[in-house]
Amino acid sequence: MQTLWDRHLSQGAREIRSSAIRDLLHVTERPEVISFAGGLPAPECFPAEALKIAAEQVLTENPRLALQYGPTEGYRPLRDWIRGHMADRDVAVPGEQVLLSSGSQQGLDLIGKLLIDPGAPVAVEAPTYLGALQAWYPYRPRFVTLPTDEDGLDVAALERLLQDGERPRFVYVVSSFQNPGGTTLSPARRQRLIELAATYQLPIIEDDPYGELVYEGDRAPLLASLDVALHGELRHVVYLSTFSKLLAPGLRVGWIITPAGLARRLVEAKQGLDLHTGSLVQAMIYEACRTGLLDTHIPHLRHVYRERRDTMLGALQEHLAGAARWNIPQGGMFLWLTLAEQIDAGSLLRSALEHHVAFVPGTAFFANGGGANTMRLNFSNAAPHRIGEGVQRLWLALEALTSAGVAV
Amino acid sequence: MQTLWDRHLSQGAREIRSSAIRDLLHVTERPEVISFAGGLPAPECFPAEALKIAAEQVLTENPRLALQYGPTEGYRPLRDWIRGHMADRDVAVPGEQVLLSSGSQQGLDLIGKLLIDPGAPVAVEAPTYLGALQAWYPYRPRFVTLPTDEDGLDVAALERLLQDGERPRFVYVVSSFQNPGGTTLSPARRQRLIELAATYQLPIIEDDPYGELVYEGDRAPLLASLDVALHGELRHVVYLSTFSKLLAPGLRVGWIITPAGLARRLVEAKQGLDLHTGSLVQAMIYEACRTGLLDTHIPHLRHVYRERRDTMLGALQEHLAGAARWNIPQGGMFLWLTLAEQIDAGSLLRSALEHHVAFVPGTAFFANGGGANTMRLNFSNAAPHRIGEGVQRLWLALEALTSAGVAV
Repeated sequence: MQTLWDRHLSQGAREIRSSAIRDLLHVTERPEVISFAGGLPAPECFPAEALKIAAEQVLTENPRLALQYGPTEGYRPLRDWIRGHMADRDVAVPGEQVLLSSGSQQGLDLIGKLLIDPGAPVAVEAPTYLGALQAWYPYRPRFVTLPTDEDGLDVAALERLLQDGERPRFVYVVSSFQNPGGTTLSPARRQRLIELAATYQLPIIEDDPYGELVYEGDRAPLLASLDVALHGELRHVVYLSTFSKLLAPGLRVGWIITPAGLARRLVEAKQGLDLHTGSLVQAMIYEACRTGLLDTHIPHLRHVYRERRDTMLGALQEHLAGAARWNIPQGGMFLWLTLAEQIDAGSLLRSALEHHVAFVPGTAFFANGGGANTMRLNFSNAAPHRIGEGVQRLWLALEALTSAGVAV
Repeated sequence: MQTLWDRHLSQGAREIRSSAIRDLLHVTERPEVISFAGGLPAPECFPAEALKIAAEQVLTENPRLALQYGPTEGYRPLRDWIRGHMADRDVAVPGEQVLLSSGSQQGLDLIGKLLIDPGAPVAVEAPTYLGALQAWYPYRPRFVTLPTDEDGLDVAALERLLQDGERPRFVYVVSSFQNPGGTTLSPARRQRLIELAATYQLPIIEDDPYGELVYEGDRAPLLASLDVALHGELRHVVYLSTFSKLLAPGLRVGWIITPAGLARRLVEAKQGLDLHTGSLVQAMIYEACRTGLLDTHIPHLRHVYRERRDTMLGALQEHLAGAARWNIPQGGMFLWLTLAEQIDAGSLLRSALEHHVAFVPGTAFFANGGGANTMRLNFSNAAPHRIGEGVQRLWLALEALTSAGVAV
């Protein structure tokens, strides 16, 4: 009975919203639709053969470990591997501060559970990752949105906020090749952000699922590495990343690098969530990492995705040069497109779906509204010839919308 | 900085406690310790070969599906298989009401998220499953404990509570071969509980991870099936179960059968938790189920675990007949042991660990205290000869404790 369950719903549950992306994905499953909507990796790049060998290896040599309950912290050899990987990025931490999670999404839920009280301010970028908002809605924060530009989060705006006395529980930043904006926080802003964190005792959640997917230019130092450099230990930054973009999202394995003071809390909270992340998939990933798969696989991904990005940029230039502006992301999986002021991206989406092409209207990524004339385009999932065709369809959809004189 | 993070902790996070079991498990990893502490299946029974074949099959034939993001509701073929499995237990529901979860533990977290507000009453058995308490502590309910006896939850006590005006958000029941008590709710009490649910519009969370592990006697009808029988549809019961005890816990795959009014909410909430449960492991499990693995594997588990239960019962009779009482569980993985009134099971545990045998003191399973002279023994994990040896060590530990004249 709907009434029964509605009556019993918690306050937090009443804040949960379905994702626009989610409903869209149902439409985009139709093969005739070219989708720039999801944040999906290229399935033809999945290292299926290597993972098959890893599964066989693990289930032959150590089936009891791969199939039994395991520690909440994660599979020790994989934690050690990640620790080394992070040390290579200048984030050296003791082993206890390296934890596995069931995808990065679980890291976000854990952060919400540990750090958000109803009504407490939480600072996020505008636009920001939709999944973070969805993870945190049930904890009922007051979202404080910070502007972004081509250099990422406007750190000066954050500083003014702090000077005005606002005390967010944390600042959430997708630091490189942001979802949805495709922007990267500049080195100077990173340094300033870490200084602000120290001055104001401000926790920073650095979400970095795309950092390895770099197509040009130098990589900026991780916020976590700057924090370590400043204090000699990780102090203000909780760093999240994932194997979803490096190997395959269907494995659902991410990781958390945490300051010492939060490590035990994260483990205890995760225990209540799912006891631990899958033993088999962790052992498989360790096997794949141990044998050096990523050393060849990441360059391969960079090559494939760079080509797709360039294909999309070329097609946009060809078809939409007069009608929209966009950025040139130096990595990741997303482009951010801004339409003329009077064009509503939601209306364009309806027209686009009629033309069998999909994207996500930008407004979904703003915690406090805005961005009605913006949209996110994914360039990693579709093959290059489909990308060109899809952008052409977008142009047709835009033509149809504007020439119809629809109230846009 | 501990102070930084402590200062930023949410109210809910302050309620999270580490599990006594968890700390114990570290000790019990030492090979010389015979552990009756964990709730671990027998690792030598894991169907590793069948799962290896399933992994190979899935990663060869459908790698893109097994490795890509998937729907939050779960892998459709597996959902359909579960739907049929539940219909065989007289719980026939539409497909939308069958959801996958990342282990049953995630189902418990979802229930907490959707149904608990701070201070709201939640009715649990005394003793109850520790993982449920851990999942719900951060939601800060007021636990109302209901007594249990050899027929399971004392439903008459619940009825008096309801008559007195208490309105729990839900009643949580491990209906068959309870963890930790090993007891099974009697058919008459099941019927009465479902009637109370209808009268008082009372949600029931039926947790049933052990229902298939039956060693003697008839199986009681599921609470969910009685609810369906009474109303013609599932109305008041959310049913949780898992492949952890049927195949392997390291896969982390459970399922939820939900009334229609809660289905969409569960999916939206789960999306924020981890987007979806692992694609690969779901596809592997479907492959194993589709090919009939459970038809032979469940009878095998019943045979092995019945023998271990009987071994433990025999050893208890031999060594502890004068010193304790215990029940004879008709299924599941646990025995419940009650010591003499003046014996503290926590003190016994310290003595037991010196004798290289472990168990969980009963007090951990009581939300509001009690059970100081009780303890839980797992009989599924250790091989029979180790079970006999372990019970003998328990006797030695008890002798040492009582003869030492320790304040017990």
